[in-house]
Amino acid sequence: MSRGRVTLPTEVGAEQASLDLIARLGADAVRNSDGTELPAGAADMVEKVYATYFVARGDQEWAQAHPDQLQQIYLLSERVTATAEELTIDPMAGYFAEQVRPDVEHDPAEWWEVIDRTTGAVVPPERWAVTADGTVRVTGATPWHEYTVTFLAWQLWDPTQMYNYLTNHWQGTGRAKEMPYDARHPETWDHMVTSLRTWLAAHPEVDVVRFTTFFYHFTLVFNDRAEEKLVDWFGYTASVSTIALDAFAAEHGYRLRPEDLVDAGYHSSPFRVPSKPFRDWLAFQQRFVAEKVRALVAEVHAAGKEAMMFLGDNWIGTEPYGEHFAGLGLDAVVGSVGSAATTRMISDIPGVRYTEGRLLPYFFPDVFRPGGDPLGEARQCWVDARRAMLRKPLDRIGYGGYVSLAARFPDFLDYAAQVAEEFRTLHDRAAGTAPWTAPVRVAVLNHWGRLRTWQTFMVAHAMHYKQTYTYLGAIEALAGLPVDVTFLSFAEVMTAGVPDGVDVVLNAGAAGTAFSGGEVWADPRLTTALRAWVHAGGGLVGIGEPSAHLRGGRTFQLADVLGVDQEVGLSLSTDKYAEPRHDDHFVTADLPGAPATGEGARNVYPTGPATQVLRYDAEVQVATHGYGAGRSVYLAGLPYTPDNARLLHRAVLWAAGHERTPAWWSDNPAVDVAAFPDAGCWVAVNSTLEPQSARVTLPDGEVATVALGAAGSAWADLG
Amino acid sequence: MSRGRVTLPTEVGAEQASLDLIARLGADAVRNSDGTELPAGAADMVEKVYATYFVARGDQEWAQAHPDQLQQIYLLSERVTATAEELTIDPMAGYFAEQVRPDVEHDPAEWWEVIDRTTGAVVPPERWAVTADGTVRVTGATPWHEYTVTFLAWQLWDPTQMYNYLTNHWQGTGRAKEMPYDARHPETWDHMVTSLRTWLAAHPEVDVVRFTTFFYHFTLVFNDRAEEKLVDWFGYTASVSTIALDAFAAEHGYRLRPEDLVDAGYHSSPFRVPSKPFRDWLAFQQRFVAEKVRALVAEVHAAGKEAMMFLGDNWIGTEPYGEHFAGLGLDAVVGSVGSAATTRMISDIPGVRYTEGRLLPYFFPDVFRPGGDPLGEARQCWVDARRAMLRKPLDRIGYGGYVSLAARFPDFLDYAAQVAEEFRTLHDRAAGTAPWTAPVRVAVLNHWGRLRTWQTFMVAHAMHYKQTYTYLGAIEALAGLPVDVTFLSFAEVMTAGVPDGVDVVLNAGAAGTAFSGGEVWADPRLTTALRAWVHAGGGLVGIGEPSAHLRGGRTFQLADVLGVDQEVGLSLSTDKYAEPRHDDHFVTADLPGAPATGEGARNVYPTGPATQVLRYDAEVQVATHGYGAGRSVYLAGLPYTPDNARLLHRAVLWAAGHERTPAWWSDNPAVDVAAFPDAGCWVAVNSTLEPQSARVTLPDGEVATVALGAAGSAWADLG
Repeated sequence: MSRGRVTLPTEVGAEQASLDLIARLGADAVRNSDGTELPAGAADMVEKVYATYFVARGDQEWAQAHPDQLQQIYLLSERVTATAEELTIDPMAGYFAEQVRPDVEHDPAEWWEVIDRTTGAVVPPERWAVTADGTVRVTGATPWHEYTVTFLAWQLWDPTQMYNYLTNHWQGTGRAKEMPYDARHPETWDHMVTSLRTWLAAHPEVDVVRFTTFFYHFTLVFNDRAEEKLVDWFGYTASVSTIALDAFAAEHGYRLRPEDLVDAGYHSSPFRVPSKPFRDWLAFQQRFVAEKVRALVAEVHAAGKEAMMFLGDNWIGTEPYGEHFAGLGLDAVVGSVGSAATTRMISDIPGVRYTEGRLLPYFFPDVFRPGGDPLGEARQCWVDARRAMLRKPLDRIGYGGYVSLAARFPDFLDYAAQVAEEFRTLHDRAAGTAPWTAPVRVAVLNHWGRLRTWQTFMVAHAMHYKQTYTYLGAIEALAGLPVDVTFLSFAEVMTAGVPDGVDVVLNAGAAGTAFSGGEVWADPRLTTALRAWVHAGGGLVGIGEPSAHLRGGRTFQLADVLGVDQEVGLSLSTDKYAEPRHDDHFVTADLPGAPATGEGARNVYPTGPATQVLRYDAEVQVATHGYGAGRSVYLAGLPYTPDNARLLHRAVLWAAGHERTPAWWSDNPAVDVAAFPDAGCWVAVNSTLEPQSARVTLPDGEVATVALGAAGSAWADLG
Repeated sequence: MSRGRVTLPTEVGAEQASLDLIARLGADAVRNSDGTELPAGAADMVEKVYATYFVARGDQEWAQAHPDQLQQIYLLSERVTATAEELTIDPMAGYFAEQVRPDVEHDPAEWWEVIDRTTGAVVPPERWAVTADGTVRVTGATPWHEYTVTFLAWQLWDPTQMYNYLTNHWQGTGRAKEMPYDARHPETWDHMVTSLRTWLAAHPEVDVVRFTTFFYHFTLVFNDRAEEKLVDWFGYTASVSTIALDAFAAEHGYRLRPEDLVDAGYHSSPFRVPSKPFRDWLAFQQRFVAEKVRALVAEVHAAGKEAMMFLGDNWIGTEPYGEHFAGLGLDAVVGSVGSAATTRMISDIPGVRYTEGRLLPYFFPDVFRPGGDPLGEARQCWVDARRAMLRKPLDRIGYGGYVSLAARFPDFLDYAAQVAEEFRTLHDRAAGTAPWTAPVRVAVLNHWGRLRTWQTFMVAHAMHYKQTYTYLGAIEALAGLPVDVTFLSFAEVMTAGVPDGVDVVLNAGAAGTAFSGGEVWADPRLTTALRAWVHAGGGLVGIGEPSAHLRGGRTFQLADVLGVDQEVGLSLSTDKYAEPRHDDHFVTADLPGAPATGEGARNVYPTGPATQVLRYDAEVQVATHGYGAGRSVYLAGLPYTPDNARLLHRAVLWAAGHERTPAWWSDNPAVDVAAFPDAGCWVAVNSTLEPQSARVTLPDGEVATVALGAAGSAWADLG
């Protein structure tokens, strides 16, 4: 058995179980977690010891002593309808008093906002006041208008620690409820640096400082029943403070309004078309975070240790695909792996020496219990992540949680050992070479572009949402396909056109979101650039409601390119004719029946007979269209399934003008293939939990037959 | 057997078959059709003879002699994307050259419009011209912008005659293709009057002049394959001519733009929120049509005959629920009955002495053929129409088509005789008295209000559309429920509030349509009026996407009243909690499982725990909510089924604060009951094609049990 590339959790009291597990999985590193301590002999167990480090909440004495330097957040009250000219709004109604407290120390007239949501007008501060009981009294209201209060609040509890605390029932253990403090305050910042310096000196046994994470937690707010109320893994609303807002005003020449963050209750989620002020705020915070992270990393390096960032929790402002990240000096990033897309989100991060993925399931009692299925979850996690690994492997994997729990599930441990072995084999066989990739580059086009590489359609990290899985499926499919994938913003296309080297532009999502694009499609710079580019030979793939923005008689602004448009109930007077052809077409050649379209677009119709409708059920499911020298493919929805991944694979090839299946083609969509020509080998993997066989066409035209057990894989040498 | 109240078709050569059918159905009137002649002895067959009369196409010699007085139409070309600074658009591409011809006799620079659809800008006439081959050459175009030509065209063929001609293969029969001419031309108008006068004098055998219809055909345009391309039963785009447009400009002080009619390709359909210019055009044409109809009716009356209007074909401008109609002097209206809603559309028309419904199926070879099921269609038509008849009966019924065809289907004739008998029984038993009605008045709220009473959600007359049946179902249900129904416009509510006497306001439809309302929901006058009214005790029923207009953080602007809102992908960061209760509630008491929601709204969620979610499947299907002293009910969709009609019935009662089932309640939603207290009788009808039984609660609390065969009915006397 081989060793290395695997990190396991350990803790005081679980030393022997750790040693057993280390041996079983060939681990070479251990780590502690939030709430657990490294055993004294950790450094003797493995080559490397990771220690969790909390920059912004590690010192609760500091937090207690500096209540004016705690982290803040902008929150929005419930909407209250006025029934008379006076009304009272309780800002905290629905919020969790243990997590947040309204900031009345800074003048609410300056920092809060009362808005008439029926007109959108801001109510002048003379017409409202915070009363002694904390409610807001509005006078001169217009009856039957809705009002809200946007208020600045202090964060009394770090959301992740709160989540862990409540979920693991730490009540009564005497543990502190940890309050986050803000690095914007020079005094706090100095304390952060000196604390780290002190800690580094005191922990010679630690090789890797695992920052969990830096300064600003993503938006995670609980309600008055201590349940999740707001969650946005990309949320910046919890990164505010009066000092930061003042600094922003000084730097940008205008003050951010509370509304620029709470955004009418959408809380500036990444699904919203980002406003100019919100973009400015992102850039502002990213510059600050980068500067401070560089300083902390320098401290770590000065102590002879490695700096690792956890991609989660207080990661806001770091933006691994942003302009500053590669220059931070970080040695590594570790993150949770929930799918192929989240694997690529980690493994593709530039500017670090290595990446690490924490596989599911965590060794937590919700899964590691009688009747739980840790083996099943581990297999699903591995087949999903493995598709991405074949394109761009993580450098390391690992697990989290309590070692003692895992020890009770030997079949899981056997499988985890097999995964570790398979992971190391991948590295051994590929030997650092790149897999063969079809000469097709796909650019995923949305408002975020490169900044949110592999991070589209995500609300809470890797969680399933009814409204997003249909589009996440496209990203999930791409994450394991042998094509180049890049992410492109509308702004780039509008200023510089589609970049050289891109063969296919993909626009997917629900109408009005930042991913589909919303009103940016009213900008002729965008539509003309794309029309010209496709007409000259480019490929366009649209999924769901691409280019959707009702205007000028069209729902899809690129309907002329796509050959389809959407009936939203206004053009019913125009007869729609569809002549679906279910005969052979390159795009649907592997799709025997109807595609799974999930919660995709409804009421899409072909704009004319030039559109080839390949799948239809009272609305278009799959269609293709020629446009000058270019081509488009429309898909109503694409939840991830192996068949849908194949459908997208073929759509991308066809749109790029590649109408023959390339080498390393598997005739079974459930079997993914990766070839490493420079290493002289290739591998076939079964991306399902049922046995599969496939015929794989090699570059010389020979056909190899592979038979794989559930989740199985097989390597072969090149002839 | 009784006699009367029934009209049958007859024609030369089918005299004996007519006499047989007249006897069998107890008919008292006969009629001819488009393309058939009355037999010489028609007047001896029955009490009344109807003759079809075509005001605007009856004299093709006149049409041929006055090509400059033909009816015109505004059409929109295909959208053409410019690939260079010059482009050519063929206005007629996709149109049927036998139906329409571009009008180049009137200066296109004045009457046509070239529009850059990518910017919405009108291209100045200096930059385009109509070439010798009829195409439009545009110069100075912006590459990759889309362009259209809106053009005025001559109508060369009346659409109904064209449809009949093509469908019945009149090619080679020597029949003329009839061209419509425009009453706006004084010369043509004089000719219309004198022609009618002459015709009236020449036809003493005719008792009823059946106008089919007056001047302007609804929009019905064919494509270059002679298939339907555009259809709008309410369309006014074919009511234009240069003379009419000039008159409009003189009267209204501004010129109508071509775009005011073609409306970016939506052709100002009733689903579009009507613009001010389009409303002006409607009012303008309605005034004109009313004035001219009054004159024609006077001629008919002067000749001692009755004037009957066919509600269809050239009915545009008559607007039976408009302000002029009741004063036209018409004796009767006849129309096709395809459902309960279309029955009420006819039977509720004010200001005529009697109404007549033409039942389905027509005696046409598409149904009356070996393998056809005329009996099945007749039963379905009757059970649907009968629900409405019980609320407000038509005065007469009848059939259309070829008598000789029907004679070959004796089981159909038996059933038709039974229908005629049942229809007469309804009149005999009810004796002209009104049915008992619950003290609940429902107002259907949309942009059209009373003008389009029972005419909402309709594209082509009574045709099924995937995007509308879910909302038509609510109208269909209401048409047979024992509640008062009225139609109300947003403008009325904004200016005068909800009228006295209204208990429940119903807003239904897809977002952005004239029925849901679109951006009118941004007007605080509307939202505040409705909030105040519901809060004071009113009831609101929302179906699908009521009050939908994305603004200020809400999708449904009345979310505070409805207790539900719609997730359109922008507020995913906010956790949605739904605690559906499937236990007893008045609204869902007769709904055992999930409701049929058709193509209703997706992703609707409760706004808070105050909302009672009664049916839920990852999204709200049925919910109720209290609002001050008032109540609301939300339904995701309501295609017509007996269970859904019951659901709406209960929703309306509950919203109105009536939480006990009223008298004449049937415990089986498939059995409808009508009571006629003033006539001392009641009837139970089976509105399905399967046997049904029901327990009906009488006003004294006694329960009567009825058992009914398929489509059956049973009368009983009041005790």
